[in-house]
Amino acid sequence: AAMEQANPRAGSARNRKVVLRDYISRAPREDDMALVDGGAVPLRVPEGAAGPAVLVKNLYLSCDPYMRGRMRDFHGSYIPPFKPGSVIEGLGVARVVDSTHPGFVAGDIVSGMTGWEEYSLIDKPEQLNKIQQSDIPLSYHLGLLGMPGFTAYVGFYEICSPKKGEFVFVSAASGAVGQIVGQLAKLHGCYVVGSAGTNEKVELLKDKFGFDAAFNYKEEPDLTAALKRYFPEGIDIYFENVGGPMLDAVLLNMRMHGRIAVCGMVSQHGMTDPAGIHNLFCLVPKRISMKGFIQSDYINLFPQFLDYMTKHYKDGKIAYLEDMSIGLENAPAAFVGLFSGKNVGKQVVCVSQETF
Amino acid sequence: AAMEQANPRAGSARNRKVVLRDYISRAPREDDMALVDGGAVPLRVPEGAAGPAVLVKNLYLSCDPYMRGRMRDFHGSYIPPFKPGSVIEGLGVARVVDSTHPGFVAGDIVSGMTGWEEYSLIDKPEQLNKIQQSDIPLSYHLGLLGMPGFTAYVGFYEICSPKKGEFVFVSAASGAVGQIVGQLAKLHGCYVVGSAGTNEKVELLKDKFGFDAAFNYKEEPDLTAALKRYFPEGIDIYFENVGGPMLDAVLLNMRMHGRIAVCGMVSQHGMTDPAGIHNLFCLVPKRISMKGFIQSDYINLFPQFLDYMTKHYKDGKIAYLEDMSIGLENAPAAFVGLFSGKNVGKQVVCVSQETF
Repeated sequence: AAMEQANPRAGSARNRKVVLRDYISRAPREDDMALVDGGAVPLRVPEGAAGPAVLVKNLYLSCDPYMRGRMRDFHGSYIPPFKPGSVIEGLGVARVVDSTHPGFVAGDIVSGMTGWEEYSLIDKPEQLNKIQQSDIPLSYHLGLLGMPGFTAYVGFYEICSPKKGEFVFVSAASGAVGQIVGQLAKLHGCYVVGSAGTNEKVELLKDKFGFDAAFNYKEEPDLTAALKRYFPEGIDIYFENVGGPMLDAVLLNMRMHGRIAVCGMVSQHGMTDPAGIHNLFCLVPKRISMKGFIQSDYINLFPQFLDYMTKHYKDGKIAYLEDMSIGLENAPAAFVGLFSGKNVGKQVVCVSQETF
Repeated sequence: AAMEQANPRAGSARNRKVVLRDYISRAPREDDMALVDGGAVPLRVPEGAAGPAVLVKNLYLSCDPYMRGRMRDFHGSYIPPFKPGSVIEGLGVARVVDSTHPGFVAGDIVSGMTGWEEYSLIDKPEQLNKIQQSDIPLSYHLGLLGMPGFTAYVGFYEICSPKKGEFVFVSAASGAVGQIVGQLAKLHGCYVVGSAGTNEKVELLKDKFGFDAAFNYKEEPDLTAALKRYFPEGIDIYFENVGGPMLDAVLLNMRMHGRIAVCGMVSQHGMTDPAGIHNLFCLVPKRISMKGFIQSDYINLFPQFLDYMTKHYKDGKIAYLEDMSIGLENAPAAFVGLFSGKNVGKQVVCVSQETF
């Protein structure tokens, strides 16, 4: 690292990487990925590159549920699958080591799509965002100030059309997106209940994130009755992260003109809905609207989101909880843990803290 | 009838009625209803009535799928269930025999909620619409110019946000609502395909209603493949009347930013979805919105709808097909036929043609 700092264009470094072994069609396991030695990489953008590029040292990597979809051999989605044998791609925070793009210089801290490895050569640097360093931890740009936070912001304000005093339910509520949705709803003057899968998370929802109530869905034999208990007058807004039996129970408990923002990729491909959804008939008499969305369609709102979140976080109005694994070698386990709810808060991996 | 005409306030008449025997939780059968003799009714509004009322002679009754929901012992819907032993309620066209409401006089032709009987005393006459007689058949006020036509109009224009050139799919397309949705979509410059359950109906869709294509869903072993064949570029708008496996196949064939207007009450209570809906995961990557609606929420648009339909029908731009059963005694069979697709076009029952 010392040599690299002195003359980054001159050195090289060993590059470990996490690759996908092969496509899967079940829930991911640790051994679907492998940590491999990628050999020595020169610490500069190769001279023969097709266009402007940026070489970065990865600092923090984000583990997100949508990535499971990229592990399947399914090419009809909005984002292509990973390539077996190749490095896993994901969002990250990184430091620029070398750049042939006029927008970036060595030392810049950026966020954007990178690789699960120590150094990445990024050939579409225009998708990177330069981070203005502040007193907010850099890794928060993968959650509170990044894609999950923006998903919460767009989903709540643009899809749910919330009104003060409405009843809001959030599933997977302690996760990266859910914890923020709930807090935005509280700031908006809504009554907010969240569900999570452990009693520890339920306590966090109430104590740290200020939800009005929360429950452990694993301890409820009848989800419909549980929701009826928490929402005797029904649910106006459901922020859908999970699908399956929870969605069916919610449909029975929705109010007239209710809105469901469908964010969840966890029930992708029906894999967590083996029994199917049976209560869609509720859509008609209750005039419910259900809308799938992807945050990137609203990217023009990103600057206002960043201002809003930064201000409210600094003012102590929004709390944020992150679950950090240390070391690239622990990235596969961290990712796999998402699907059994092991993480408490937004799951990230620290590859390096060398921000200088 | 002669006496009634001479002095309607003086006479009386025998009143046959169709009653619901008991609540059901399966598809309706003819013997769930019974034709009973309601005895003699005086042909005037009783003097001790609680408020203004109207006595009508029923001319045409409407058989609509939503009525099945009222045959169940389920009180959580937007409309209460029928009462066992009491007359079936439904939309109809009727002639006013006597009125104590200032808005109606004997001889007026009205449409609105009435009973499946020869004479009905209507104690909420404010819900009745006076029909201006024209050269359009009166019974069309139960379809083309009534609730089904308005459902099509509202669903297509207000829920589907159609754009010229978009790809539109309509299920149950030869039914009361579907036939009109398809024609509105054609008038709007869309490409329209419909599905129906017999080859005769498929021919009607193409020949009479001007759909670009149509298919018999019962002859398609793979609905997903069938839709792929008819919509190689995918579906922008789905007008949902049926639920079940068709909805699952549509979800896989929707385009980006597609819209699903959920109108269908046929799959109410999941009874026609025994396997459930498995493909809702498509909502997210395709940014699909799915919205249930009920026409009465848009009642302020009714006058413009009536103008539009009347004009286009008279200009020969919209065709309409009605399936009329003659005689109150045939009403149960006509209604039951809806659920096996026996009717070809909008199902009505003619009780009487005495419009004078």
